[in-house]
Amino acid sequence: MSDLLDGLFGSSASAQAFSTRAHLAGMLHFEAGLARAQASLGLIPVTAAQAIERHCDPAGFDTAALSAAAGLAGNLAIPLVSQLTALVAAQDVTAARYVHWGATSQDAIDTGLVLQLREVLGGIEADLDRLCAALALQTERHRLTVLAGRTWLQQASPTTLGLKLAGFLEAMLRHRRRLRAAREAALVLQFGGAVGNLAALGEHALPLCAALATELDIPAPLLPWHSQRDRLVDLACALAMLTGTLGKLGRDISLLMQTEIAEAGEPSIPGRGGSSTMPQKRNPVACAVALAAAQRVPGLLSTLVGAMVQEQERGLGGWHAEWETLPELVRLSAGALGQMATCVEGLQVDAPRMHANLEADGGLLMAEAVSMALALHLGKSGAHQVMARCSGTARSTDRSLREMLGQDPDVREHLDDAALDALVDPAAYVGAAGALVDRVLEQARAEA
Amino acid sequence: MSDLLDGLFGSSASAQAFSTRAHLAGMLHFEAGLARAQASLGLIPVTAAQAIERHCDPAGFDTAALSAAAGLAGNLAIPLVSQLTALVAAQDVTAARYVHWGATSQDAIDTGLVLQLREVLGGIEADLDRLCAALALQTERHRLTVLAGRTWLQQASPTTLGLKLAGFLEAMLRHRRRLRAAREAALVLQFGGAVGNLAALGEHALPLCAALATELDIPAPLLPWHSQRDRLVDLACALAMLTGTLGKLGRDISLLMQTEIAEAGEPSIPGRGGSSTMPQKRNPVACAVALAAAQRVPGLLSTLVGAMVQEQERGLGGWHAEWETLPELVRLSAGALGQMATCVEGLQVDAPRMHANLEADGGLLMAEAVSMALALHLGKSGAHQVMARCSGTARSTDRSLREMLGQDPDVREHLDDAALDALVDPAAYVGAAGALVDRVLEQARAEA
Amino acid sequence: MSDLLDGLFGSSASAQAFSTRAHLAGMLHFEAGLARAQASLGLIPVTAAQAIERHCDPAGFDTAALSAAAGLAGNLAIPLVSQLTALVAAQDVTAARYVHWGATSQDAIDTGLVLQLREVLGGIEADLDRLCAALALQTERHRLTVLAGRTWLQQASPTTLGLKLAGFLEAMLRHRRRLRAAREAALVLQFGGAVGNLAALGEHALPLCAALATELDIPAPLLPWHSQRDRLVDLACALAMLTGTLGKLGRDISLLMQTEIAEAGEPSIPGRGGSSTMPQKRNPVACAVALAAAQRVPGLLSTLVGAMVQEQERGLGGWHAEWETLPELVRLSAGALGQMATCVEGLQVDAPRMHANLEADGGLLMAEAVSMALALHLGKSGAHQVMARCSGTARSTDRSLREMLGQDPDVREHLDDAALDALVDPAAYVGAAGALVDRVLEQARAEA
Amino acid sequence: MSDLLDGLFGSSASAQAFSTRAHLAGMLHFEAGLARAQASLGLIPVTAAQAIERHCDPAGFDTAALSAAAGLAGNLAIPLVSQLTALVAAQDVTAARYVHWGATSQDAIDTGLVLQLREVLGGIEADLDRLCAALALQTERHRLTVLAGRTWLQQASPTTLGLKLAGFLEAMLRHRRRLRAAREAALVLQFGGAVGNLAALGEHALPLCAALATELDIPAPLLPWHSQRDRLVDLACALAMLTGTLGKLGRDISLLMQTEIAEAGEPSIPGRGGSSTMPQKRNPVACAVALAAAQRVPGLLSTLVGAMVQEQERGLGGWHAEWETLPELVRLSAGALGQMATCVEGLQVDAPRMHANLEADGGLLMAEAVSMALALHLGKSGAHQVMARCSGTARSTDRSLREMLGQDPDVREHLDDAALDALVDPAAYVGAAGALVDRVLEQARAEA
Repeated sequence: MSDLLDGLFGSSASAQAFSTRAHLAGMLHFEAGLARAQASLGLIPVTAAQAIERHCDPAGFDTAALSAAAGLAGNLAIPLVSQLTALVAAQDVTAARYVHWGATSQDAIDTGLVLQLREVLGGIEADLDRLCAALALQTERHRLTVLAGRTWLQQASPTTLGLKLAGFLEAMLRHRRRLRAAREAALVLQFGGAVGNLAALGEHALPLCAALATELDIPAPLLPWHSQRDRLVDLACALAMLTGTLGKLGRDISLLMQTEIAEAGEPSIPGRGGSSTMPQKRNPVACAVALAAAQRVPGLLSTLVGAMVQEQERGLGGWHAEWETLPELVRLSAGALGQMATCVEGLQVDAPRMHANLEADGGLLMAEAVSMALALHLGKSGAHQVMARCSGTARSTDRSLREMLGQDPDVREHLDDAALDALVDPAAYVGAAGALVDRVLEQARAEA
Repeated sequence: MSDLLDGLFGSSASAQAFSTRAHLAGMLHFEAGLARAQASLGLIPVTAAQAIERHCDPAGFDTAALSAAAGLAGNLAIPLVSQLTALVAAQDVTAARYVHWGATSQDAIDTGLVLQLREVLGGIEADLDRLCAALALQTERHRLTVLAGRTWLQQASPTTLGLKLAGFLEAMLRHRRRLRAAREAALVLQFGGAVGNLAALGEHALPLCAALATELDIPAPLLPWHSQRDRLVDLACALAMLTGTLGKLGRDISLLMQTEIAEAGEPSIPGRGGSSTMPQKRNPVACAVALAAAQRVPGLLSTLVGAMVQEQERGLGGWHAEWETLPELVRLSAGALGQMATCVEGLQVDAPRMHANLEADGGLLMAEAVSMALALHLGKSGAHQVMARCSGTARSTDRSLREMLGQDPDVREHLDDAALDALVDPAAYVGAAGALVDRVLEQARAEA
Repeated sequence: MSDLLDGLFGSSASAQAFSTRAHLAGMLHFEAGLARAQASLGLIPVTAAQAIERHCDPAGFDTAALSAAAGLAGNLAIPLVSQLTALVAAQDVTAARYVHWGATSQDAIDTGLVLQLREVLGGIEADLDRLCAALALQTERHRLTVLAGRTWLQQASPTTLGLKLAGFLEAMLRHRRRLRAAREAALVLQFGGAVGNLAALGEHALPLCAALATELDIPAPLLPWHSQRDRLVDLACALAMLTGTLGKLGRDISLLMQTEIAEAGEPSIPGRGGSSTMPQKRNPVACAVALAAAQRVPGLLSTLVGAMVQEQERGLGGWHAEWETLPELVRLSAGALGQMATCVEGLQVDAPRMHANLEADGGLLMAEAVSMALALHLGKSGAHQVMARCSGTARSTDRSLREMLGQDPDVREHLDDAALDALVDPAAYVGAAGALVDRVLEQARAEA
Repeated sequence: MSDLLDGLFGSSASAQAFSTRAHLAGMLHFEAGLARAQASLGLIPVTAAQAIERHCDPAGFDTAALSAAAGLAGNLAIPLVSQLTALVAAQDVTAARYVHWGATSQDAIDTGLVLQLREVLGGIEADLDRLCAALALQTERHRLTVLAGRTWLQQASPTTLGLKLAGFLEAMLRHRRRLRAAREAALVLQFGGAVGNLAALGEHALPLCAALATELDIPAPLLPWHSQRDRLVDLACALAMLTGTLGKLGRDISLLMQTEIAEAGEPSIPGRGGSSTMPQKRNPVACAVALAAAQRVPGLLSTLVGAMVQEQERGLGGWHAEWETLPELVRLSAGALGQMATCVEGLQVDAPRMHANLEADGGLLMAEAVSMALALHLGKSGAHQVMARCSGTARSTDRSLREMLGQDPDVREHLDDAALDALVDPAAYVGAAGALVDRVLEQARAEA
């Protein structure tokens, strides 16, 4: 498949961790580690382990032949072990006898994947830290920057940009906790032999398992997990939820960046977001990447959850369905995360425009504020009716809400000009925004 | 929609928690709790709170009118608040002024849902405990019950039923931990007002939020979460993963229950699993339910993850997409869990048949065992070739592997009859099965 | 499950076709038709058929008992046939012997579903005709109503509302063709007996199949299709694609309806789209419904496609997964369609506001128009650079594009004031919009 | 991303059509065709068109730079056009002015994709023909080969392998018709300019559109379809349904191939389906590929359907979500199809084993046959009860159904030994299997 879009949809960490070379390297690390562990327990000669390890270099393998052979064998490990055995045998026939000793294909494939995941998750967690830091900074900076709160894509009532961003920051803190927990649970050794009981290794099974875990510097689980895949799916869930929030971030920023709203925007970088035909265009590229990831990841996740139904000791089709799906999901999450971290770091905020837009609709978004004041006199339902009437007239006559209110006898009976002026001031009607922002910033500092 | 299949796909807890009545009750609990909390802070008269609470009884509402009005209003809370206000006003005009004071529709709808979830999760966790206990019992009982391990739907090598079940038990322990964590995070109050800053309540906002949480006996979060939905999705993820494992359990049991294998089966209950036309049929009903849930839940989960992209302060379409999807996902998980818990409790195991099936294919599944022994002499690759040849001849001539081995000169050179007899004994080739089982049982006891 | 949201998400046709009563009625039509067909061929006594038919009335059945029994039996047909047999036997023991003669559960369940689908598809196709007619009318009316074309959520270049709507109209014509083809293929009899060869009916099998098709007025297929489900999935695909376009329609209208854009909006109906707390709100309810459906349907479709993997003669789990999923998908499609048809019929269009918004950004969206004129002199790339510079300066200095152009020497060299004035007129730069609209209207008329 | 699994999951046609080179070639064909078409209408100099075409060779492009630049630009066409312009300019400055004249990025990207799809669909349709031919041959060959029909994974009643395969054949004929229709509708030119009205081309727009279609030998649609994506999704639906049936075929064959059933199997090819540790293994590789595709494609399809919600004239995120998803879906369908065509061509059938398995369960699968005979005397319900009792006793005492029947007084009263012997003959109870097979074969011949 074309990899021309890797620069757009992936991150550099994902590109590296999921390259053809890294794919091979993961499985070869397993094979080399297995040989070393077996030598350390005296199960195979040390020279054999050394010979095997020497050939566990991706550069020595014929990838086209591997790919073709996998089409017959049904998995990559079988032809990989064959090539490795041949490479070793060419130099040391005895050592070749010990390649892949006691293991099954899935041990190499799953552990290889876990090693690739460990690699890429390092990059993802670093980017997540970067995003959290950027969000915290912008949240603090815009703690009381007032803009229209919007619900159902309509102006609703004023709020602050800081509170909006605090919502993202708090979500990202949750994602970080979830991701750490899922990563810790998922990054474990796979080593079970043909049917998960390591029978081929007899009494050496469990000691070897422990030694192999040490060699690969990865924890050994209680049991092999050939057909119990919830750990990997848990990781996919954590990343999918993260991507969902990144998609919302992309949606919100791109909505604020609309030509007619123009309250915030992606950082301006030369060559970024242009058009092949429209010279004025500044397209929200990071948002596009995040939204595309948020559109794709749910389907990939559904595949992984559905593929948990793997038959008996090792499944048919479900396991295979994971091979390209999980890396793809991780890559898209990583790519969206990297793009959005950079976007938030350089987020362009136009506070005057936010202020201007609060007046754009005749100030109708202050209707609730006035309604609550009137409700003290007319009850909630009565006040709602009066205000709905005033709002409707303001809209149909293209005048401001304030003007309508000043002329309405039911309103004037209870609220004078000074009271009305105070009530229609957006900055005075952002409620607990500041206090709520502070709570989240405190939490962020505590978890930093 | 027809609810005729609720008895098959749901659980009694889910049927109760997601009934029309419970749907109303959830939102009405919010409205009553809000009034009580406001009265407790002196924001509204105590008599008003009492009057409001008195009418927060689902029985008093016209559900057909609510459903029709929701089609215009766009959500259920608007017509619910209207009906409630009218009911209260009919008896106490003053009290009616305080209905839903300072809240927004989403506060009532989300908190109502959280209260319904709290209800149903109680039932789910109880069933999960029941399933864990049943799995632990069966795992221990069948710790060394030998059967064919099967990979890619082919007999592979022997293993024990206990180890197979231990894999499920360990997965269920993980699901239980995840579910508890997700439940704790998700079951929090929603209370943010129009755009999430509680502006309509002025300085009373945060104290009222705390008081409301106390009234409803549910924690208050740091922030309102109108458009940050990861908490609910996290719960959905935990249940989806659980359902994935239940689907695998259903698949494995139904495969073992096939007429030609018949090693295990669902408990036999009068009226269960018959056919409308075939008198001999005993269909695996619990497995069907679990497999159907495992087929449906991934798609529902993908909807929820995709719907996280909710615009600005409150979204358009994404929030709406959750309303029926999350209850459906919970119901299917609950139903599959209940059916499989009962199935494992009464699991029928036919150990003699397992034994017989080990011989069904001429004992070919012992090939690895012999191959490992030969490998000490011929190397892994050499032994593999000899055994592949013997297996092929056994298969094509319809004789047993043992017979072939006894006649093969390359084998005889290294292994005599006694050695071969020992090597082809399935019970002697289950590796670390017992020790692995013990690890998991210990973990289960520690977490019980 | 609560059905309080049926008024919002469903249509009246879907509510009727998928009610509990209709669910029963579908299966009972099958049983009655079977008895009549058998009597018509002399296979059972005419009096038996009459007795059976007399009791095939949903009103006579105990639905709670059916639902509970389905939880044991694994499907609804088994307890339904039991209850029907008992009802008939109470009046005519002989007739009771012939209930469900030669059929299998799936024959009743699948055919019942097909009959329900036939019912609801009538309503859907009528609403689709209504939507096509409304789109054609609005397309013609706004053939040359100029507004900003928007790409990546940014103003791009002018276009016409008519062309935008023509895109929807053409898509709807395709959906209508696809839906008709899929409906015709899907609405066929299911009748195959236990394993699809009608063995229980001996030589009468195929004649009875034909007679039953006649009785139910539904075509008989070449083969029973117990485990080949592509016909139903094809119908689901057609509806899912329709819903995708409805979601886009809801997205586009709700974007145009944003407070700051306000170019078009849902029809204004008393009680529609209000807020429980904000008196000024007019929420886009139909758009919310369409967007929610477009969010939910893809997941449901993925379940149905995944569930095609049904084992052997009749599957385990996959078939069960369809039972509630397909009706849900149809209901959501029907609901979104009905809401959007009404929305387009009453679409509010504010052409002056569209005109004003074309100037909102300093007229920058005319940059391509000018660039193409300059390109004749400077080449495409050179012109692009000049215009990108002018656009950037206009944006950063908050002046209009026209003003910048008038001052730019590179521009002035080739274009005088008159030329520039003509080039920045949006109405003069809508290209082939009118001709393209005419093509689609002609096609719509040809297919009306 | 690693492409090591392309040999397993893809086909040679998909590998070629979706390579990096073909990805570039698709867009470059568009650019070259555009220049030629413009020259043919006299819009640009013929020499410019020739210069442009000369550089439209993928080999001349720096793919690493393109991928990196796409990460800033947001799509591939922008950097591609830049590189192309630079390449042309290096030799012919005048010609460079006309590169990509009047087009927008999406015109090049979408048309390029359509050209890639045309390529790969040729290979897919050829493989589908091959599969249909193989299914027809095997269906005819095994028209009356008797085996156990299985429902809910239990032996149910006898049927024939021919009828089972005829179900697949009929489904494949439907898929072929759907695929042809979808291909014809989907493979159309994309050419709309910035917002779909070709404004940049003035009066030349529609003639140029027609000329470009001629140059690329691809039909021009009524309208540009930048944000109306149903045509591509329709193609995806057709392929997804095909893959669903391929998954069922893989499931059925792999179930028949289980060690304990062994009635049919994948063709035996050296090196195919082995194990890295178990010498006797013959894994069903083609089935694994088909099942994996059937697990993955539904999620990819759901992404494409969900991504139909593309904003206004050109969308943000939805369009981007298609770019890798649709090729992946096509590749998986193509790979599964190729593997299963080969599998059916060489399908191994063991008719004696089928016969033996009919007796495996004491012949209980003949219960319906006897029940129908008894029903003539006892009524359907009465007979069902007698037979359920006999079946239960046979099962619990491990005797054959025939033996039980011979001893049951209720049975003996109506059926003597000869009648019973005839009734328990599987070959005599396959109903209309032969006639049904003939219907489908006739249809296949008519459509060949």
